[in-house]
Amino acid sequence: KINADRLWDSLMEMAKIGPGIAGGNNRQTLTDEDAEGRALFAKWCEEAGLSMSVDDMGNMIARREGTDPDALPVYVGSHLDTQPTGGKYDGVLGVLGGLEVVRTLNDLGVKTKHPIVVVNWTNEEGSRFAPAMLSSGVFAGLHDREWAYDRTDAQGKRFGDELERIGWKGEEKTGERKMHAYYELHIEQGPILEDEFTDIGVVTHGQGLKWLKVTLTGRESHTGSTPMYKRRNAGLGLARLTELVHEIAMDFQPDAVGAIGHVEVYPNSPNIIPGRTVCTIDIRSPDKRILDQMDKRIRAGTETICDALGIDHEIEMVNHFDPVAFDEKLVETVRKAAKRLSYSHMDIVSGAGHDACYINRVAPTAMIMCPCVGGLSHNEAEEIDKEWAQAGADVLLHSVLETAEL
Amino acid sequence: KINADRLWDSLMEMAKIGPGIAGGNNRQTLTDEDAEGRALFAKWCEEAGLSMSVDDMGNMIARREGTDPDALPVYVGSHLDTQPTGGKYDGVLGVLGGLEVVRTLNDLGVKTKHPIVVVNWTNEEGSRFAPAMLSSGVFAGLHDREWAYDRTDAQGKRFGDELERIGWKGEEKTGERKMHAYYELHIEQGPILEDEFTDIGVVTHGQGLKWLKVTLTGRESHTGSTPMYKRRNAGLGLARLTELVHEIAMDFQPDAVGAIGHVEVYPNSPNIIPGRTVCTIDIRSPDKRILDQMDKRIRAGTETICDALGIDHEIEMVNHFDPVAFDEKLVETVRKAAKRLSYSHMDIVSGAGHDACYINRVAPTAMIMCPCVGGLSHNEAEEIDKEWAQAGADVLLHSVLETAEL
Ligand SMILES: NC(=O)NCCC(=O)O
Ligand SMILES: NC(=O)NCCC(=O)O
Repeated sequence: KINADRLWDSLMEMAKIGPGIAGGNNRQTLTDEDAEGRALFAKWCEEAGLSMSVDDMGNMIARREGTDPDALPVYVGSHLDTQPTGGKYDGVLGVLGGLEVVRTLNDLGVKTKHPIVVVNWTNEEGSRFAPAMLSSGVFAGLHDREWAYDRTDAQGKRFGDELERIGWKGEEKTGERKMHAYYELHIEQGPILEDEFTDIGVVTHGQGLKWLKVTLTGRESHTGSTPMYKRRNAGLGLARLTELVHEIAMDFQPDAVGAIGHVEVYPNSPNIIPGRTVCTIDIRSPDKRILDQMDKRIRAGTETICDALGIDHEIEMVNHFDPVAFDEKLVETVRKAAKRLSYSHMDIVSGAGHDACYINRVAPTAMIMCPCVGGLSHNEAEEIDKEWAQAGADVLLHSVLETAEL
Repeated sequence: KINADRLWDSLMEMAKIGPGIAGGNNRQTLTDEDAEGRALFAKWCEEAGLSMSVDDMGNMIARREGTDPDALPVYVGSHLDTQPTGGKYDGVLGVLGGLEVVRTLNDLGVKTKHPIVVVNWTNEEGSRFAPAMLSSGVFAGLHDREWAYDRTDAQGKRFGDELERIGWKGEEKTGERKMHAYYELHIEQGPILEDEFTDIGVVTHGQGLKWLKVTLTGRESHTGSTPMYKRRNAGLGLARLTELVHEIAMDFQPDAVGAIGHVEVYPNSPNIIPGRTVCTIDIRSPDKRILDQMDKRIRAGTETICDALGIDHEIEMVNHFDPVAFDEKLVETVRKAAKRLSYSHMDIVSGAGHDACYINRVAPTAMIMCPCVGGLSHNEAEEIDKEWAQAGADVLLHSVLETAEL
């Protein structure tokens, strides 16, 4: 079993970097706070005897050698970046849980045949630079590196420039390394495990996702003196689109979710009818056919909404991945580990996207989930119990040991 | 008759200051561009032999002496500030039209019994610092000066500090001066005059207005992993509120208008269900009972919307004025002037708020409107014909002469 107090202390130590305004964290990717978090993690890795490499997407690869020089490493990890108003565990638990696995093996003097790598993927959250899971995406060959460098934040800053600025752009070409397997421990970010009083989610699948960036163009004019019949209100269009996305998701639930979380209104003045609005629609389903149907209905519905209001629209897909089925053998390894450790467990589908969803394309991959209070995540109030972290990291330890072999 | 070429040249000269991105202007109140516009206007006033005073709200008061030392002045004017994406005429025509009246009287060597004052009211637009018509409001005793100083912009900068920073905070207490009458020439900002092929709008009334700032508080959580039934989506609440305001305005049209132009979404990340949204509702009617009914329906509807979504709300009235009836005698003076000059004219209700609506409380006031192309205003594409400006300024000249007496 892992050392729960040590894991917890590390989680709390990391949470001091980039504090939020309500008890959580604002440690967005490629900020100074991200750099500080990386430095702390690097220090801990060094103390645990790991050797650190950094690739040209800033992914941190901390390696514990195995006994067989020809064996490929077993990777464990997740991400240290957070949402602007994020929690202390989303991503962090997976990275520091991986570190705790190594620390425990060190304590016990256990050597494995396969090397073990603890990895911190850059920009998992995607809220500063869309899309999410950018660097695991480059690793898995889904995104081109130069394209990734050209992603810009709301201030127009380039991903590539910011990566260089914080000093974490390595030399090594991202994706060159091969893996034997990848395990990611993560909080559920939803309410199911807690509602079912279950310690461990054995993640069999991950939802597919589409992000549609929609620009509506009406005509800005004076709110007071433009008669109702003369308006081309892009804000009203956005309102109807928000309702449409909600309706469609409700029609397909529980096999779908959807919402608009990101919105820009121009010129955003109280007495001007919005002339232009931009939003990002996030729709998800574990079933590719449903996801495609939702997409189709949104496009048709947008057409209808815009026709009625006399406004124009443009739709761009800015993020997209298909539903994922994780490696059956590794999933079974996780299930068995939970059973052996006598933790209650159930199969579960990941609602969120994770680096594991991309890495699954290039290496056998599985995920372990633990509950979070009220299913709340992407919120500074995100919380977990120390026992839940313990259970998750224990199952991670046993899964890794099984796959890395003694 | 006034000199239309000179008026037009001055309009075009002023429009060079704080150019927009699409042919219009961004000369928001108390910016460096506002200061530059003020300096140009002050220079022109000096050249026209006017003496300039500035009060402690930054209102510019440029005076041409009359022949009777005891007679109160006739004021003419409007505002030089613009929306962030504003036009070249909204407000500016009234100030420079007033200046053109004085220039014409100078040309003709005409002296009036009452002094004539050309006035530029500070922060009419209200888009940088809400509420609109802030300084004419202080002049008319509707707002307290210190309260006005404490208004902040989106960056948290105080009105009082910015007024001092641009160097246009005078010593004189705002509102101390008395007026004989006030005339304001303004573009209609709506389509009626153009649709009716009419040169001059004789403004009999101004609409009443309420700005309701509504804060909706739900719970931010992960878009992908929060089941639909567990959501408290403040963005969906905002969408329904937007639709509600539109519906209510449609029910009362043509005697009402309404829309939401200003919106903030928190934390505004594509994969986070909005936990909080803030918006400003703008509703207007020339009929106070209708305005009050709209307000009531919005409050009741917000309650219903929020109950259904499990979100909380707060409503604050950030701007409010009752419908206005302008001074009958001055309105008749405007009507007669249009008739005498053989300009086509009709009675009209002002859809927008104007400094005249507030000054009407402390002095006899009337407004003159001229058409604008497509009724478009609060848009950089705002446009008028030189002939329309000429007609408006001619009627202003004749009205002022009638009231200021030879
Ligand atoms: N786990 C997580 O929050 N990932 C961000 C990508 C997503 O929106 O699912
Ligand atoms: N004329 C004008 O645009 N005034 C701003 C105040 C309002 O919204 O009516």
